Amino acid sequence: MIHPSAIVAPGAKLGANVSVGPFSIIHANVEIGAGSVIDAYCEIGYPTPLADGLPLRIGAGARIRSHSVFYQGSSFGERLVTGHRVTVREKTTAGVAFQIGTMNEIQGDCTIGDHVRCQSNVFIGKMTTIGDFVWLFPYVVLTNDPHPPSNLLLGCQIGDYAAIAAMSVVLPGVKVGRHALVAAASKVHRDVAPATVVGGNPARYLCDTSTIHLRDGTERPAYPWTTHFRRGYPAEVTAGWDAPAELDGQDTPP
Amino acid sequence: MIHPSAIVAPGAKLGANVSVGPFSIIHANVEIGAGSVIDAYCEIGYPTPLADGLPLRIGAGARIRSHSVFYQGSSFGERLVTGHRVTVREKTTAGVAFQIGTMNEIQGDCTIGDHVRCQSNVFIGKMTTIGDFVWLFPYVVLTNDPHPPSNLLLGCQIGDYAAIAAMSVVLPGVKVGRHALVAAASKVHRDVAPATVVGGNPARYLCDTSTIHLRDGTERPAYPWTTHFRRGYPAEVTAGWDAPAELDGQDTPP
Amino acid sequence: MIHPSAIVAPGAKLGANVSVGPFSIIHANVEIGAGSVIDAYCEIGYPTPLADGLPLRIGAGARIRSHSVFYQGSSFGERLVTGHRVTVREKTTAGVAFQIGTMNEIQGDCTIGDHVRCQSNVFIGKMTTIGDFVWLFPYVVLTNDPHPPSNLLLGCQIGDYAAIAAMSVVLPGVKVGRHALVAAASKVHRDVAPATVVGGNPARYLCDTSTIHLRDGTERPAYPWTTHFRRGYPAEVTAGWDAPAELDGQDTPP
Repeated sequence: MIHPSAIVAPGAKLGANVSVGPFSIIHANVEIGAGSVIDAYCEIGYPTPLADGLPLRIGAGARIRSHSVFYQGSSFGERLVTGHRVTVREKTTAGVAFQIGTMNEIQGDCTIGDHVRCQSNVFIGKMTTIGDFVWLFPYVVLTNDPHPPSNLLLGCQIGDYAAIAAMSVVLPGVKVGRHALVAAASKVHRDVAPATVVGGNPARYLCDTSTIHLRDGTERPAYPWTTHFRRGYPAEVTAGWDAPAELDGQDTPP
Repeated sequence: MIHPSAIVAPGAKLGANVSVGPFSIIHANVEIGAGSVIDAYCEIGYPTPLADGLPLRIGAGARIRSHSVFYQGSSFGERLVTGHRVTVREKTTAGVAFQIGTMNEIQGDCTIGDHVRCQSNVFIGKMTTIGDFVWLFPYVVLTNDPHPPSNLLLGCQIGDYAAIAAMSVVLPGVKVGRHALVAAASKVHRDVAPATVVGGNPARYLCDTSTIHLRDGTERPAYPWTTHFRRGYPAEVTAGWDAPAELDGQDTPP
Repeated sequence: MIHPSAIVAPGAKLGANVSVGPFSIIHANVEIGAGSVIDAYCEIGYPTPLADGLPLRIGAGARIRSHSVFYQGSSFGERLVTGHRVTVREKTTAGVAFQIGTMNEIQGDCTIGDHVRCQSNVFIGKMTTIGDFVWLFPYVVLTNDPHPPSNLLLGCQIGDYAAIAAMSVVLPGVKVGRHALVAAASKVHRDVAPATVVGGNPARYLCDTSTIHLRDGTERPAYPWTTHFRRGYPAEVTAGWDAPAELDGQDTPP
C-alpha cells in the first residue's frame, strides 16, 4: 500500500491499511488512522516550529488528494476528505467528516466542528471558529486582521449550518449566525443574525431564509437546507432530516 | 520522451512523440494525441466512478503544464494548452485550442466550444456551457447552485466571443450574450444582452461595447476584440479579422 | 543537501550549502545563492523563450516552499521566502526579503521593491510596479488590460508602504499612493491618494489613514503600520520604528 517511490519517515505512525501514493512524503511526527488513502505528491507533517512539537493527527478513513500539504501540529476527526493541493497549517483542530476543497488554505489555530464542507479555493484565516455542518463555497475568504498589517487577529465565527456563497469575504471578528446564508460576492462587515440572508458589498439584510423556496418546481422551503439535502451524510446524521414539520430556521435537526 | 521517473500504465494509449515529464503519472484509461507534451508532476486520467468508465481523451498537440490533474472521462480537441496546477473533472468536453490558465478548476459535465481561453484561477462550475472564442480573466467564478447547498444545478451559459473580466462572479443559470463584456469585480445576477457591457455589484448595464475605444492612441473600436487582437490564433481563424468594416458587435468574424 | 531523487542540471549554479528537496527539478539556466533551501516538488528555471536567454537568479538565503515553479529570466534579492505552489514568470525583478504567499502568481515584466510581502493567492499581472514595504493580502488581483482582451497592458503602480486588503481588485494603470490602505473587497478604479483609505465597489475615499486606531485597547494609531508592526523585519530596517513622534502618514520611517 506504500508506493515504492514514497518517502515515509521511520517514526511515522500509520494505521492498518493506510495507502501512500507515488512521490508522497510522510514526516515522522505524524499519526494517520486506519484505512486512510494519501494520493500522490503530498507532503504530510510539514515541520514547523509553530507546532510546538505537536504531531499531526489524521483520523481513520481519511482521503487526501494529490499535491496537498499538511503541517505538523493539527488534528482531524475520522473521514477527512480533501480535494487537490490543499494547505493546512499548524494547531488547527477539526471534527469528523471535514471536507476540504481543492486549493483550500486553512491557516493555523482554527477550531472547526463536525461535518463542515468547503468547496474550492476557500481561505480560512488564523483564529477562525467554525461550527458544525457549515458550508463554505468557492473563493470564500475569512479574514482576521482589522487593520492590516497588525499583530491583532480577530477570527471570524461561523455558526452551525450557516452557508457562505461564492466569492464572499467575511471581515475580521464578524459572527455569522446559525442557519444564516451569505449571498455570493458579498462583503460581510457586520454580524449576521441567525436564519437570515445577507448580500451585497457591503452586505445588507435581504430576507429571512424561511422565505426562499426551491427552484426545482416543488416550492418546498430551501432552508434549512437539511430538509432536502443529505448527500454523503451518514444515515445517523440525516435520520430525521426531510421532516420539515419538526424544523424551523434556527433549530438543529434531530 | 517518457522520463524514466514517470509512471505510465500499460493500458494508456499515447500517440507518436508524446512526451511525459519527470514524476508524472498516466493512468490506463487515457488517450493522448500525437505530439503532446505533459510536464512534470501531472496526474492524467485520475480515476473516478463518476466517469462511468469513459476514458480521458486529449487531442493531438496538447501542452499540459506541471502539477496538473485531469480526471478520467473528459474529452478535449487538438492543441489543448494549460498553465500549471489545473484541475479538470470528469465528463467535460471542449473543442480545439482550449487554453486553461494556471490553477483553473473546471468541474464536470461542462460543454466548452472552440478557442476558449481562460486566464489564471478561473473556476467553472458543473453544468456550465461556454461558446466559442470566449475569454475568462483571472479569478472569474461561474457558479451553479441557486440556493446552496442543494441538488439543483443551473449552469451558466456564456455566449461566443464574450469576455468576463477579473474577479467577476456569474450567478447560477445566468446567460451572458455573444460579444458581451463583463467588467472586473462584477456580480452578474441577470442575463447580459449581446454586445453590451455590464459592471458593478450587482452588475448593471453600462454601455454598448461599440462605444469603447482602444486606449492605444488609435481610437479604434476595442470591440469586437477580434478586430485588433489575434495573438496565437491560427491563420485560418483570423483571416478576415482586422477588417472592421465587415464586422459589427454581433457578427462572427468570417 | 541535494536529495537523491532531485534532478539538478549540470549547468545549474548552486551556492554553498544550497539544499534541494525530494523530487525537485533545477534547470541549467539558474543561479541560486548560498544557504538557500528549495523544498520538494519544485521546478526552478522553467524554460521559456520569453526570457530571451536570461537566467533565473535567486539571492542568498532563499526559502522556496513545495510545489513552486519559477521561470527562467527573473531576478530576486537575498532572503526570498515563498509559500507553497507559487508561480513566478520571466523578467520580473524583486529586491531583498520578498515574501510570496502560497499560490501566488506573479506574471512577467514586473518590478518589485524591497521587503514586499504578499499573502496567499495574490495575482500580480504583467507590467506591475510595486514599491518597498508593500503588503498585498489574500486574493488581491492587480490587473493590466484596460479593454480585455487587447495588446495594451497598463500595469498598476503600488507605492511604498501601501497595504491592499483581501479580495480587492486594482484596475489597469491605477496608482495606489504611498502609505495608502485599500479596504477588503474593493474595486479600485481611480488613483488612491497617499495615506488615505479607500473602499467599496467601486472604491471611494473613506478617511485618512491617520484616523484609524488600533483595536487592541491602546488607541495608538494603526497607520503608518510601521509604528507597531515589525515582525520579521531585520533590525536595521525597524530601528527607528515605534517612534510615532517622528512619523506622519506620508513619511518614510528613518
